Amino acid sequence: MAEEKLPNWLKNRAHLSPDRPAIEFEGQTYSFLELHTLTEKMARRLASAGLMAGDSCAVLLRNHIDGVVAIHALFYLGVKIVMLNNKLTAKELSWQIEDSGASYLLSEGSFASKLDDMAGNLPELPLLLIEQLPNGGTAEILQEFYLEDTATIMYTSGTTGNPKGVIQSFGNHWWSAVGSVLNLGLHEGDTWYCAVPIFHISGLSILMKSVIYGMKVVLAERFDEREANRAIQENGVTIISVVTTMLNRMVHDLKEASYPDDFRCMLLGGGPAPIHLLEACKEKKIPVYQSYGMTETSSQIVTLAPEYSMTKIGSAGKPLFPSQLRIEQDGKASGPGEAGEIVVSGPNVTKGYFNRLDATQQAISDGWLYTGDLGYLDEDGFLYVLDRRSDLIISGGENVYPAEIENVLGKHPDVFEAGVTGTEDEKWGQVPLAFVVLHQGAELSESDLLDYCRQSLASYKIPRSVIFCKSLPRNGASKLLRRELKKGMEEWQ
Amino acid sequence: MAEEKLPNWLKNRAHLSPDRPAIEFEGQTYSFLELHTLTEKMARRLASAGLMAGDSCAVLLRNHIDGVVAIHALFYLGVKIVMLNNKLTAKELSWQIEDSGASYLLSEGSFASKLDDMAGNLPELPLLLIEQLPNGGTAEILQEFYLEDTATIMYTSGTTGNPKGVIQSFGNHWWSAVGSVLNLGLHEGDTWYCAVPIFHISGLSILMKSVIYGMKVVLAERFDEREANRAIQENGVTIISVVTTMLNRMVHDLKEASYPDDFRCMLLGGGPAPIHLLEACKEKKIPVYQSYGMTETSSQIVTLAPEYSMTKIGSAGKPLFPSQLRIEQDGKASGPGEAGEIVVSGPNVTKGYFNRLDATQQAISDGWLYTGDLGYLDEDGFLYVLDRRSDLIISGGENVYPAEIENVLGKHPDVFEAGVTGTEDEKWGQVPLAFVVLHQGAELSESDLLDYCRQSLASYKIPRSVIFCKSLPRNGASKLLRRELKKGMEEWQ
Repeated sequence: MAEEKLPNWLKNRAHLSPDRPAIEFEGQTYSFLELHTLTEKMARRLASAGLMAGDSCAVLLRNHIDGVVAIHALFYLGVKIVMLNNKLTAKELSWQIEDSGASYLLSEGSFASKLDDMAGNLPELPLLLIEQLPNGGTAEILQEFYLEDTATIMYTSGTTGNPKGVIQSFGNHWWSAVGSVLNLGLHEGDTWYCAVPIFHISGLSILMKSVIYGMKVVLAERFDEREANRAIQENGVTIISVVTTMLNRMVHDLKEASYPDDFRCMLLGGGPAPIHLLEACKEKKIPVYQSYGMTETSSQIVTLAPEYSMTKIGSAGKPLFPSQLRIEQDGKASGPGEAGEIVVSGPNVTKGYFNRLDATQQAISDGWLYTGDLGYLDEDGFLYVLDRRSDLIISGGENVYPAEIENVLGKHPDVFEAGVTGTEDEKWGQVPLAFVVLHQGAELSESDLLDYCRQSLASYKIPRSVIFCKSLPRNGASKLLRRELKKGMEEWQ
Repeated sequence: MAEEKLPNWLKNRAHLSPDRPAIEFEGQTYSFLELHTLTEKMARRLASAGLMAGDSCAVLLRNHIDGVVAIHALFYLGVKIVMLNNKLTAKELSWQIEDSGASYLLSEGSFASKLDDMAGNLPELPLLLIEQLPNGGTAEILQEFYLEDTATIMYTSGTTGNPKGVIQSFGNHWWSAVGSVLNLGLHEGDTWYCAVPIFHISGLSILMKSVIYGMKVVLAERFDEREANRAIQENGVTIISVVTTMLNRMVHDLKEASYPDDFRCMLLGGGPAPIHLLEACKEKKIPVYQSYGMTETSSQIVTLAPEYSMTKIGSAGKPLFPSQLRIEQDGKASGPGEAGEIVVSGPNVTKGYFNRLDATQQAISDGWLYTGDLGYLDEDGFLYVLDRRSDLIISGGENVYPAEIENVLGKHPDVFEAGVTGTEDEKWGQVPLAFVVLHQGAELSESDLLDYCRQSLASYKIPRSVIFCKSLPRNGASKLLRRELKKGMEEWQ
């Protein structure tokens, strides 16, 4: 099995189930055969532009059928894809492109102004615009994918220093899809709604599942809670991937309505979710599957199995079948209830960071990835994610977990969402600071909110102050960026 | 990925979903945690009897909860299992045990007389009876299964010469289960009925799926059509594995009744099925999934996907997602509609025969297995299995496929089942001979039946004679053994 290979995924799927719907975008549905035909055509155009097997190509794309086709076409050609986050600045993008050693940049007209901004910083590499690719030509299409081969590289910021390119092999994507199907099951009419970015592992993993499972995806260019709710209520969507803020907005938009019985999975990732939100979902009978994962694990690696979604509320669950998990503190495995670093392994886990031997060796030891996240296992082996280790606040020697305080703030009826981070304090080392977004029209004073906190939290966990704001900083995957909260504050003060 | 490994399947499943039902046998249901606990106990007993990692142990077992536990316990210990067909004679069994180099034989009291018969022929190796294993003791349990490692060895007869031991790795079993789930899907309440032998790949693959999927299995000691129908109608069975003769009996027993909507898959293997039977199932809305596979492919490798089960009737379908298929004649790929040898590849395909380098090299070339079976692909790429190549009758230079004649015979309302084989003929080389089992109470003459055949078959396909018999010879997996038909005839004449 040293050179395990599988027939080219989309091409194989188009052979096995040509007529099944593959993807719906802006009201138009493409079968797997149609998607394959578009992909072959795109592959020929990219080959005519010079792309060849073994090349590496950075892509700056929207959630759009053209982007999906471009990604598959690059796989067809055996070209490694450097997935760029289209929310980054021109400077950040240029840095990543240079770091990745990509020899092409593939983008589209809608990014014209950003591409202009990048022009000065960019290394000398050809820029290809989808709309301007040459027509026709021939291309050699990969008949098989080797699981060891690199499929994609995605940059993550980590906590310090420059971003690092996470290497994701075809095998990583494959095993991620297989681990997920063994947990979530697979029904004949399954349709997965993708409003998370396809340049991020949350979105890309849905595209991979689509071709591996033979499953329909409804792709949205951007997230809109009304659109998402409508898709579930009227368009046969059975599964959707969301992060907390998306779920929050969907639940508010849903009001007294509910989802049809066929809707079977609200897959929630992107960090610990506030308990009050999970409880609201429980009341509305929304089948939330809390999950935990990251770019390095090629999407979810821990997910709450169906039978526990209502009894282990707040837990991220147990590892997917092919993966393993332990909690470690000071090099020793932690016992039940003891917090420590989350350490994971499995065939969906990256083999390392591109061109970063040091970072790879620091993060991965004997196949186990040290995630830098904090959590604990309960008596039954369920994972509870506390926080990203970098977000931990240490106040007077006590560990203070931002998520715990956010949970309390979020329960206040006037609060839409909250973020907490630490700030320097002469006496305590660090103290918590709260950033709060209120519901539209709501009014609430800082002192009232702090009084509210005092009902549930020990005094050392009470935020030193509350900063009311219009939105919280989030990354391309809508994950809360706690370290950016402070940055905002510094700018405002 | 060279040393891909997965957490010990049953143990991992008992950790992930301890309370889910794993297996029901004789009215008693065991959860995954209970099955794991029984398995650990059995592993300790086997270890006390001397079994160690790296050993190889032949097993002669019934379909029984103890047999299931014994199989898992041997996996837990890292002991390779030589699966013996309990329908074989003492002499055949002794030969296989010796050939396999097994250092233990594990069996149970119910095989006492067969074991007595074997005593004279057996090489000197310890016989362990489940009932008499020592109690207690300690055992080192494998925490991980390496996909490259041999899990089981199963003997197949092939067409000539001695049986050969097919090596099945953990990876073969894993990929078989994954290929199947990507085709059949997986529902929360799925329950698979296993009345096929667990020493055969058809039964063993169900046990593997159970722990990999976290799915309930209802195990029957032997097949009984009323029991099977009752399990589907009253006991929540959603999937069942059958071969033609089992399906035939179930359909007759079903009479005017039908199956509940939750019953979603009648997985039909073990050779081409007569068209009239498939049509009868179509009328009764029985969701038949024709499939094609063998010991060497660790169960089905080609299966008809749900959406084609009614339109491509008679076809075995397309390969499972991870596998590939082509038809070859004289070293060249055949075009659509052209018959040739079925050649397959994929991670579920064996790497070879135990201790048979020649046979391995003859059957497997560059990862492709030459099955010895005949078939063709239609214009859409669907496989139609004609016959085992060894069963092909060549009459006056014409290829005559037994299955075609059996299909015609089987359509006669008085015929329960039919088998056709070739016999020597001075003029034509070979001519077909028919063996027919009539429905109970039915009366039909040879000449009437041959007249019936003349309505549908060219003259060179008309059997030279019809031999009426009470049953047809079948192997442990209830597959029709065409070469045994003639043997029976020789005895009768």
